[in-house]
Amino acid sequence: MNATRSVYFEDLAPGMRFDCPTREVTEQDIVRFAREFDPQPFHLDREAAEATFFQGLAASGWHTAAMMMGMATRSDFQPANGHIGMGVDGLRFQRPVRPGDTLHMHIKILNARRSTSQPRFGVVKVRWEACNDRGEVVAEATPSMWIEAREVRP
Amino acid sequence: MNATRSVYFEDLAPGMRFDCPTREVTEQDIVRFAREFDPQPFHLDREAAEATFFQGLAASGWHTAAMMMGMATRSDFQPANGHIGMGVDGLRFQRPVRPGDTLHMHIKILNARRSTSQPRFGVVKVRWEACNDRGEVVAEATPSMWIEAREVRP
Repeated sequence: MNATRSVYFEDLAPGMRFDCPTREVTEQDIVRFAREFDPQPFHLDREAAEATFFQGLAASGWHTAAMMMGMATRSDFQPANGHIGMGVDGLRFQRPVRPGDTLHMHIKILNARRSTSQPRFGVVKVRWEACNDRGEVVAEATPSMWIEAREVRP
Repeated sequence: MNATRSVYFEDLAPGMRFDCPTREVTEQDIVRFAREFDPQPFHLDREAAEATFFQGLAASGWHTAAMMMGMATRSDFQPANGHIGMGVDGLRFQRPVRPGDTLHMHIKILNARRSTSQPRFGVVKVRWEACNDRGEVVAEATPSMWIEAREVRP
């Protein structure tokens, strides 16, 4: 929750971009998330991770996705009804997220259409892109969101 | 990690199904995840959630997805190189996940092809489907995984 003005469906157009606060990733965060949700050697133990596909400790992809959600909820993009996802496509993990990385994310509006089934809402497709502090894309996703309209279309 | 025999790319064929252990969802889990990754009223507070889109406390979709990953890592489906996702499509949140729900998940092999770029691996598309204890689908996803092959194709 922040002081940014709420946005409604009518305020959105393809191409609009919103910034998010950065997020630091610690080894402790990576290991804690992995213990509960993704207990595999490359997410749990720095030494054991060396001999794996990831060649070192890396965050679970689901941890990265959850951190992206955290950045979205704290961003300049504040839909009046909150961030409510119908679904997500195109979730890709391009590079490992490592302990000590700082993630940067922006949100871009891809398209916005009035819902046919729910006239109080629009369906808005957004693009999330997260980079590390070396400017490399680490992950991206395309959530489809329910966004409240200011006016109900008859 | 469990005692189930590891599977390799060559062992997999479309239509194969694997079961996962169930997972209970508590109010405390929902709120703890939301505080860190998705701090919105409908995931944080039982009373505040009543007046929202979800009409009651519901797990963050990213929490549900992370729990699905947890069930996959503890399932009968144990790739020799672990569960390594390239990406995920078709992540859908059909129904709210509520405190007290027990999630049931199965994994189905959709297709399996040899990687052209990495001859030691296959690219295997799997379907995750999670239901609550009333048999209603709550979420589904289609991860694409890197799965080690027993033999390197020349």
